[in-house]
Amino acid sequence: RNGRVDLSHGAGGRAMGQLIEDIFHTAFDNDWLRAGNDQSAFTVPAGRMVMTTDGYVVSPLFFPGGNIGSLAVHGTINDVAMSGAKPLYLSASFIIEEGFPLADLAKIADTMGAASREAGVPIITGDTKVVERGKADGVFISTAGVGILPEGIDMRSNAARSGDCVIVSGSIGDHGVAVMSKRENLEFDTDILSDSAALHTLTAAMVAVGGTSIRLMRDPTRGGIAATLNEIAHQSSVGFRIDEEKIPLKPEVAAACEFLGLDPLNVANEGKLVAVVAPEAADAVLAAMLAHPLGQEAALIGHVVEDPHCFVQMETSFGGGRIVDWLSGEQLPRIC
Amino acid sequence: RNGRVDLSHGAGGRAMGQLIEDIFHTAFDNDWLRAGNDQSAFTVPAGRMVMTTDGYVVSPLFFPGGNIGSLAVHGTINDVAMSGAKPLYLSASFIIEEGFPLADLAKIADTMGAASREAGVPIITGDTKVVERGKADGVFISTAGVGILPEGIDMRSNAARSGDCVIVSGSIGDHGVAVMSKRENLEFDTDILSDSAALHTLTAAMVAVGGTSIRLMRDPTRGGIAATLNEIAHQSSVGFRIDEEKIPLKPEVAAACEFLGLDPLNVANEGKLVAVVAPEAADAVLAAMLAHPLGQEAALIGHVVEDPHCFVQMETSFGGGRIVDWLSGEQLPRIC
Ligand SMILES: Nc1ncnc2c1ncn2[C@@H]1O[C@H](COP(=O)(O)OP(=O)(O)OP(=O)(O)O)[C@@H](O)[C@H]1O
Ligand SMILES: Nc1ncnc2c1ncn2[C@@H]1O[C@H](COP(=O)(O)OP(=O)(O)OP(=O)(O)O)[C@@H](O)[C@H]1O
Ligand SMILES: [Mg+2]
Ligand SMILES: [Mg+2]
Ligand SMILES: [Mg+2]
Ligand SMILES: [Mg+2]
Ligand SMILES: [Mg+2]
Ligand SMILES: [Mg+2]
Repeated sequence: RNGRVDLSHGAGGRAMGQLIEDIFHTAFDNDWLRAGNDQSAFTVPAGRMVMTTDGYVVSPLFFPGGNIGSLAVHGTINDVAMSGAKPLYLSASFIIEEGFPLADLAKIADTMGAASREAGVPIITGDTKVVERGKADGVFISTAGVGILPEGIDMRSNAARSGDCVIVSGSIGDHGVAVMSKRENLEFDTDILSDSAALHTLTAAMVAVGGTSIRLMRDPTRGGIAATLNEIAHQSSVGFRIDEEKIPLKPEVAAACEFLGLDPLNVANEGKLVAVVAPEAADAVLAAMLAHPLGQEAALIGHVVEDPHCFVQMETSFGGGRIVDWLSGEQLPRIC
Repeated sequence: RNGRVDLSHGAGGRAMGQLIEDIFHTAFDNDWLRAGNDQSAFTVPAGRMVMTTDGYVVSPLFFPGGNIGSLAVHGTINDVAMSGAKPLYLSASFIIEEGFPLADLAKIADTMGAASREAGVPIITGDTKVVERGKADGVFISTAGVGILPEGIDMRSNAARSGDCVIVSGSIGDHGVAVMSKRENLEFDTDILSDSAALHTLTAAMVAVGGTSIRLMRDPTRGGIAATLNEIAHQSSVGFRIDEEKIPLKPEVAAACEFLGLDPLNVANEGKLVAVVAPEAADAVLAAMLAHPLGQEAALIGHVVEDPHCFVQMETSFGGGRIVDWLSGEQLPRIC
């Protein structure tokens, strides 16, 4: 039908079955999907598990360094991994706009399949809905993920305490800048690629050396590290003191942020993490990160401090200081 | 801001945190969400689990007997339950159109919270994205669910075999007719309510008496029982012979289907199941269903037969016979 998705592809009949078979099962390719049940089964040992979900509405769908499909795999794996858990399985729910090119859908599905295979985290169940033209924007994907926690690991958002070290795994703002660079009415020249990546092998290496000394980990997605640190500050009733000079930032990202009028601290990342680590373990955790391909530029950027106002304070490169606030407005919609 | 969702509600900052707190955490109200981590943790015994996901794009969002929120809870619980598993936890991903009334969002969230509490299956993690006006249609919800399988239960889509009995848990077509009755340009008078309901206590009662004699269960959602039976027929390489007179159907639903030019066999259900049961256990399983509030009108509607063509054949009320096909077209978009 002209190579485009139509409403029958979401109607539960033969056309839908064919689409799922030809595009999704082919791309994700595993025995769970082939079984064709309403759900997929797997075996777990006794213990603690985690579950998470994210919706992906990034615009444009294809951007330098990835597309909505890789994002939907990496982002959900990362939210599982931030607990210290080993990601096991993913689900994927697609909401597709009538008229969306089948070739683009296949490209997205193939990218998802490749990302999930590379990460070793299969997409074992899915869903496909189609809405009328003008009632969605190409394709939206919601993924959910489950994983298992190593015994004894129990990170919590309120666990940061005064004196703890703050480590970031690499340069900030790459994803947001890469997506913005392809926005209509905004195109600017940059070679920046999204940092979109699955961080679970990095977190596993960190947990192996840091164990329970890692108080908590977060992937600073929407809102950037500014939002992440402010969230942790409020949840743990502490403040942060960070050092601008220590925060890894690519010159091209800094330049693009200046051009866009954005603070890189507010810009989304999709392959970075922030860890709050007890001081005695900070060196070992940092060393483990530096030894990992996704943590080569890791840096200790500051400390947790006592602060009844829960402020995130930053010593700036010019020697001054300022308070790092959340992004108040709507500068960066649909970045993930 | 005028009581409507705006783009800042999805930007990862303070406004988003406030929205999640005020609307979703209040409605879903549980300790997992309050912990505020990127994921939620829970303890499981060793064994087999299942995972499933569905997206919900029903239009209109509110319909007689429910709304998109109750649907998103019941539908995903049911896909877990159809494996014979006990549903444990849900995740919920929201994609919201800018300008959507906060009051409607709260109503939907409250309905979800109530449905999840009534079912005893908490929503332990979620996500909130906002897209620009005209890039979605009010709100879309994707839920995922996990559950645990009783030892020894392992239903498969290819398990139906010649001689098995086909049981349906109650009257068909109610959900589809209830939603269609509120479609713009289509409103017609009917008292039919959606059958939207969580079927996991019914399936538990069935599994308790039927055990491994229950070959498989399915909830006949999009595409109705016609699609479900055709799917099973192909997956199990069998045919079906069913008896129209035995299929529970409300007179008002039959009348509405006639008015709409639809075959009730193609119309979606959201609180019904089809079970394929070994003949020796059929009476006991049917009795257990009849004794359950959600199975009071359960009926044995036919049998599995050998058929190289995998046809679903129906003896009609007039004594003739016909082949029940999948719905070919796009008559019923956005029914769930
Ligand atoms: N986009 C997708 N990617 C991978 N698998 C998919 C996708 N969409 C559907 N599936 C798989 O296809 C099968 C049928 O899915 P389907 O959504 O029809 O079942 P259902 O959830 O029981 O029905 P409904 O969505 O109408 O409630 C399932 O095994 C499901 O995992
Ligand atoms: N609609 C919702 N209902 C319930 N809880 C929600 C909802 N949206 C978000 N949450 C919860 O709020 C917290 C923060 O979610 P958020 O999406 O900001 O985290 P994240 O997934 O790490 O970030 P991102 O989505 O930018 O990747 C999580 O605990 C999440 O479960
Ligand atoms: Mg996330
Ligand atoms: Mg489905
Ligand atoms: Mg996260
Ligand atoms: Mg379903
Ligand atoms: Mg999220
Ligand atoms: Mg189902």
